[in-house]
Amino acid sequence: MVSTPTITLKPTSQKMPQVGLGLWKVTNTADTVYNAIKTGYRLLDGACDYGNEKESGDGLKRAIDEGIVKREDVFVSSKLWNTFHAKEHVKQLAKKQLADWGLEYFDLFLIHFPIALEYVDPAVRYPPGWAYDGQNDIRSARVPLQQTWEAMEELVDEGLAKNIGVANYQGSLVLDLLRYCRIRPSVLQIEHHPYLVQKDLIDLCKAEDIAVTGYSSFGPQSFLVLKWKKACDSPTLFTHETITTIAKKHGKTPAQVLLRWATQRGIAVIPKSNSQNRLLENLDVTSFDMTPEELASISALNRNLRFNNPIDYLGKFSIFA
Amino acid sequence: MVSTPTITLKPTSQKMPQVGLGLWKVTNTADTVYNAIKTGYRLLDGACDYGNEKESGDGLKRAIDEGIVKREDVFVSSKLWNTFHAKEHVKQLAKKQLADWGLEYFDLFLIHFPIALEYVDPAVRYPPGWAYDGQNDIRSARVPLQQTWEAMEELVDEGLAKNIGVANYQGSLVLDLLRYCRIRPSVLQIEHHPYLVQKDLIDLCKAEDIAVTGYSSFGPQSFLVLKWKKACDSPTLFTHETITTIAKKHGKTPAQVLLRWATQRGIAVIPKSNSQNRLLENLDVTSFDMTPEELASISALNRNLRFNNPIDYLGKFSIFA
Repeated sequence: MVSTPTITLKPTSQKMPQVGLGLWKVTNTADTVYNAIKTGYRLLDGACDYGNEKESGDGLKRAIDEGIVKREDVFVSSKLWNTFHAKEHVKQLAKKQLADWGLEYFDLFLIHFPIALEYVDPAVRYPPGWAYDGQNDIRSARVPLQQTWEAMEELVDEGLAKNIGVANYQGSLVLDLLRYCRIRPSVLQIEHHPYLVQKDLIDLCKAEDIAVTGYSSFGPQSFLVLKWKKACDSPTLFTHETITTIAKKHGKTPAQVLLRWATQRGIAVIPKSNSQNRLLENLDVTSFDMTPEELASISALNRNLRFNNPIDYLGKFSIFA
Repeated sequence: MVSTPTITLKPTSQKMPQVGLGLWKVTNTADTVYNAIKTGYRLLDGACDYGNEKESGDGLKRAIDEGIVKREDVFVSSKLWNTFHAKEHVKQLAKKQLADWGLEYFDLFLIHFPIALEYVDPAVRYPPGWAYDGQNDIRSARVPLQQTWEAMEELVDEGLAKNIGVANYQGSLVLDLLRYCRIRPSVLQIEHHPYLVQKDLIDLCKAEDIAVTGYSSFGPQSFLVLKWKKACDSPTLFTHETITTIAKKHGKTPAQVLLRWATQRGIAVIPKSNSQNRLLENLDVTSFDMTPEELASISALNRNLRFNNPIDYLGKFSIFA
């Protein structure tokens, strides 16, 4: 069975696998999670917003019940949604999400976006998504990120999360977090692919002992199914000559080259797949090494092209400006 | 005498001239300020860090004493330096800076950078600059921006500043400020030129009623004297064909075209000059209009090229990553 290297998180010293299964847009979730664990996956990356935490928990439970893994063998990560940033909602939601998973604790819990939206009662609609009414009424909430982070820290105090972190933060926001935190962030999760290399942000995290998880490692690919124009208009990385040439040379697939480019840069990746073959292929990305020149030629594809940007799909929240 | 349009600031409704004199790197400051006021300048943009607030105040006093202007005719802006972010230092410094200027209040006071450095007593070195020891020892301070902003708000309460704002903030940081502020920021000051157009950030400010002041309107030009490599390696905008063609057509200088491009986008500008002719030329930038096509052709020069980036000259503080 394939096993992956790990990243040692600060400040806890807990080890996080460098390759995991991302649960965004995963369908047939319980089976996918169960099969992924059988294949060797030991990191599951979920979120309230993905709407499949119960099913994810079912798949994990099946694997545990069958003795394939113990709870402590699997690193389970989830995320706090924007509507739950207020102090009183963070713990409520963490507990609800843990109940959905059937778990006592998350290994990692992240603030999904640096965006606070008005509270939507889970009894009314869950997951709530972006709009207050489930349609077009997007309502900001005046909850500063510091308040949310303090509530995240309490999750650690109470053992509901082993590690906490953030996602979709810019550099200046990470720096401000480091000025007010009592417990430092273990992880920053960001969009990361050869069209969006983000060298400075990754260097900042390295210098500050914050592990980086990259999402959408295949670039536009992740967004084609959503029919987002920017993604449809961008040349796919799977057929990009730079990528295919290197893939051929190493006898690997373009997907593996893209994932290895990230992991060789020290970044954790969380590709998803509904296919068993690709699950295996995606996991097997640390068994070959590219040369520094090959890595540099991939990094040179950078065009600061970001696909997951709320200003593009909501017309507000310029969190990347 | 040339007069310039104004921007009405929120929440105070005070009017800020759209063209002013930036005092960074100004030499012979008292004479320059005095002459600028005689020429028609009614906005002075200073900062602790520029090291010439006393001289600026001398020039302003001469103009007032000679009856050229009254205090209330001139919009005086200054900035809080990074070493003074702690609650107890903000007021101390605002008062010191006002004393240097010989003024009772600033029309606008900005947080210069979203970076907090260890306190340096003004009696030890002033302005303190980036390094704790005046050499290479750069020391961060754990003062969150919210604490600094709360102290800025107290300056308004006490009448030491009519308006307050920030500089060099990214979008996500502006959005967080809007979540915790009691008094909203009137102004965001940012680097802004055709190589760094920053459409999303400017749109955010428009939507949030925050006026934008652009600095380094001439792009690399401002940094050549500092011999910064990135600036020296970038093609000058003054001889760029797009700019010179439009300048010729309107019978204006390239500098005027660059300033007008910004002001037609609704942005305030603060060019500096030690030459009397250019002071006049820079002020006379709202007497002609470019076509939407001309403006668009200038905006198309954007290459997200930033010159004033601490990570480049300090090797830390990735506030723009």
